[in-house]
Amino acid sequence: MSHFFFHGVDTVELACTYGTPLYVVSEDEITARIREIKSLFDDRRERCRTHFASKAFLTKDMLGILKREGVGLDVVSGGELYLAREMEFPAERIAFHGNSKTEMEISEGLDYGVGKFVCDSLDEIKLIDEMARSRGARPNVLIRVNPGVKGNTHAHMLTSGGRTKFGLPPDLLRQTAAECAALENVAPVGLHFHVGSQLMDAGAHLEALDVLLGIIKELRDEMNFETRILDMGGGFGVAYTPADKPARIGDFITPMAARVEAFCAANGLTRPDLIIEPGRYITGPSGITLYTVGSVKEIPGVTTYAGVDGGYHDNPRPALYEAVYDAVVANKYGVSPAKNVTLAGKCCESGDVLIRGIMLPDIERGDIVAVLCTGAYCHSMANNYNKNPIPAIVMIKDGEARLSVRRQTYADIYACEMPLP
Amino acid sequence: MSHFFFHGVDTVELACTYGTPLYVVSEDEITARIREIKSLFDDRRERCRTHFASKAFLTKDMLGILKREGVGLDVVSGGELYLAREMEFPAERIAFHGNSKTEMEISEGLDYGVGKFVCDSLDEIKLIDEMARSRGARPNVLIRVNPGVKGNTHAHMLTSGGRTKFGLPPDLLRQTAAECAALENVAPVGLHFHVGSQLMDAGAHLEALDVLLGIIKELRDEMNFETRILDMGGGFGVAYTPADKPARIGDFITPMAARVEAFCAANGLTRPDLIIEPGRYITGPSGITLYTVGSVKEIPGVTTYAGVDGGYHDNPRPALYEAVYDAVVANKYGVSPAKNVTLAGKCCESGDVLIRGIMLPDIERGDIVAVLCTGAYCHSMANNYNKNPIPAIVMIKDGEARLSVRRQTYADIYACEMPLP
Repeated sequence: MSHFFFHGVDTVELACTYGTPLYVVSEDEITARIREIKSLFDDRRERCRTHFASKAFLTKDMLGILKREGVGLDVVSGGELYLAREMEFPAERIAFHGNSKTEMEISEGLDYGVGKFVCDSLDEIKLIDEMARSRGARPNVLIRVNPGVKGNTHAHMLTSGGRTKFGLPPDLLRQTAAECAALENVAPVGLHFHVGSQLMDAGAHLEALDVLLGIIKELRDEMNFETRILDMGGGFGVAYTPADKPARIGDFITPMAARVEAFCAANGLTRPDLIIEPGRYITGPSGITLYTVGSVKEIPGVTTYAGVDGGYHDNPRPALYEAVYDAVVANKYGVSPAKNVTLAGKCCESGDVLIRGIMLPDIERGDIVAVLCTGAYCHSMANNYNKNPIPAIVMIKDGEARLSVRRQTYADIYACEMPLP
Repeated sequence: MSHFFFHGVDTVELACTYGTPLYVVSEDEITARIREIKSLFDDRRERCRTHFASKAFLTKDMLGILKREGVGLDVVSGGELYLAREMEFPAERIAFHGNSKTEMEISEGLDYGVGKFVCDSLDEIKLIDEMARSRGARPNVLIRVNPGVKGNTHAHMLTSGGRTKFGLPPDLLRQTAAECAALENVAPVGLHFHVGSQLMDAGAHLEALDVLLGIIKELRDEMNFETRILDMGGGFGVAYTPADKPARIGDFITPMAARVEAFCAANGLTRPDLIIEPGRYITGPSGITLYTVGSVKEIPGVTTYAGVDGGYHDNPRPALYEAVYDAVVANKYGVSPAKNVTLAGKCCESGDVLIRGIMLPDIERGDIVAVLCTGAYCHSMANNYNKNPIPAIVMIKDGEARLSVRRQTYADIYACEMPLP
């Protein structure tokens, strides 16, 4: 019986020192993943850049890593841009996404001089044009295309196809591009697409890319609209459990880049600058969540419910997407599985079950459980449902742990309450 | 063309004064609903008490109303209990629920002297017994039963049946009750059940009640275990849209109370004290959310997407439960519907669509949309996904509006970040 170590640190000790629930995130792993992607993309070809999708995981520490590693940043809100500004993240490396930016957010993006706005509608582009005019600015704009290709993932993670709110179908895109080209205060420099999230192979990406390349040629031939930047989105899957077998990142991005190059060469087009936007791939497997087991209840013939001290409020993904996770009992690492266990979250919500039916060693009150691969979309989706405080984040670097985000107090939860009259 | 008024207040003016997104909650409506329930339950029979399920909506103002109206309070966490303590809510009227209370939470409950703990497992009851011993306390305990009855609702809102983490099936209950009776430092005073949420009629409640009554008799006859309190849960549905036709609250609780009385009279049992736990019924229809429309994008033959300035972060229920809402364009109230509109939230998430395919007047940038019946499980499930700030809450009373909870600032979102090393 030994302890589970995460990137050189004893997780049982972490639970003891910082309390639970606790997000533990490895800076080493994040850095390694960024460098892997850059070596396959940014460093392999000219004018290729990796942007981190900050909605996956955004903290000051994370921005520090991204600055240091020289990658770009996708933001989707004024709130994300705020931290980038606070951290003096280079404005020209920021892309401002989002299907429904507010005027205030556009204003904030213009003030900071973000490198590009990625827009879902002509309506928004016209607003940016109008707001840029009064500032004497001329921001870059990418138009988001809905290539109509469906990836094989949860419906809520599909961002292309008939029912998505994102992007413009090809017909509408042509018309929008023509109208954009006539606007004086925006520079329509390219196109964006994103097929979906947590995809297991490059099939849907390549299919969508073919649609985009056809559009790029058509826009050039028929409207003299040059796509100088092509943002190919993210969606590169990770293994939440051993049953997930995602393609390696290179098997997504290398064929994608090669296909663009071949098409452009064959059609006399200058190859656009290329962007990819991994989020989950970089931080997902770089994080785990530690919980303490509370009450254990065996329902004979069904399962053993082990209640933990976290749940929906620190990880809503099982309730939202039926996401499946893997876990280990950190203080009984290496002990043979003995029981079918259901890790129940503490929220008063039937959907708050972290993992259903996982084989674990004999589990009891006080055990520390590590749920794996929680570095993306857990902290970023955390909430105060049932008025549970949001957990702390500890960052691991070179085998040392450091508090990055402190645990909320009860008082924090109610910080915005006004005094009673 | 006129403005939409909510309980005597012009919602367009509210949007203008307080900004959007904005939760607007009517104290008058909440009070009326509490009084309606009390008149049918607490005031109709002896020893009947309504508890408010605070997970539905909990603020200082809400606690103020509950104190004044003399109802009880269900809490499910230390964070909920914290505010009750801050507001000096009477401890004896508090029931502490939850399937996985932490030791710290149990300790907080004992310190404040809550009226009862509602427990899901023998394991937890033993822990309470142990912790109470060292304090010389003897708290009341209710045991939660899973009657195995399925209500007709979303799987995530089912809290009874085979796969739920909540409660003990009847077989296990008998054994647990016997073991509880032998513990010295807890008083096992009764039973709890809760069939599910947002149920449209009393069918499942009555079916479950019959199971419970059978158990109550059996426990008395075979173990001399007296059920002095029977907590019958909540789950009384509301109309989110005109298509929902929930039974009136009286058609749930009157037959439930009558059935208990008849059964007890017929079987020589003292009728237990009765508790019901409405949450959504009290606050759901008492609140609305105001949004400002941003970009509008018509996809011919599909729908018109109207992006708003809120979404998943202020109301995750459509993404979580496929919840369906109704809405009006507040500044075009009474104007005939002209378009099939999809109200898209602003989060970078395909599932962030507030309402799909609703007929609304011609909608355009700057319009104010009121989504109805958002007074339950919206503020309480709000989050900072995409680093969007959580909206303010305005309370309405006697036609006057007052800020109850202020809007988060960007800085608030990052309040727990530690300084970089």
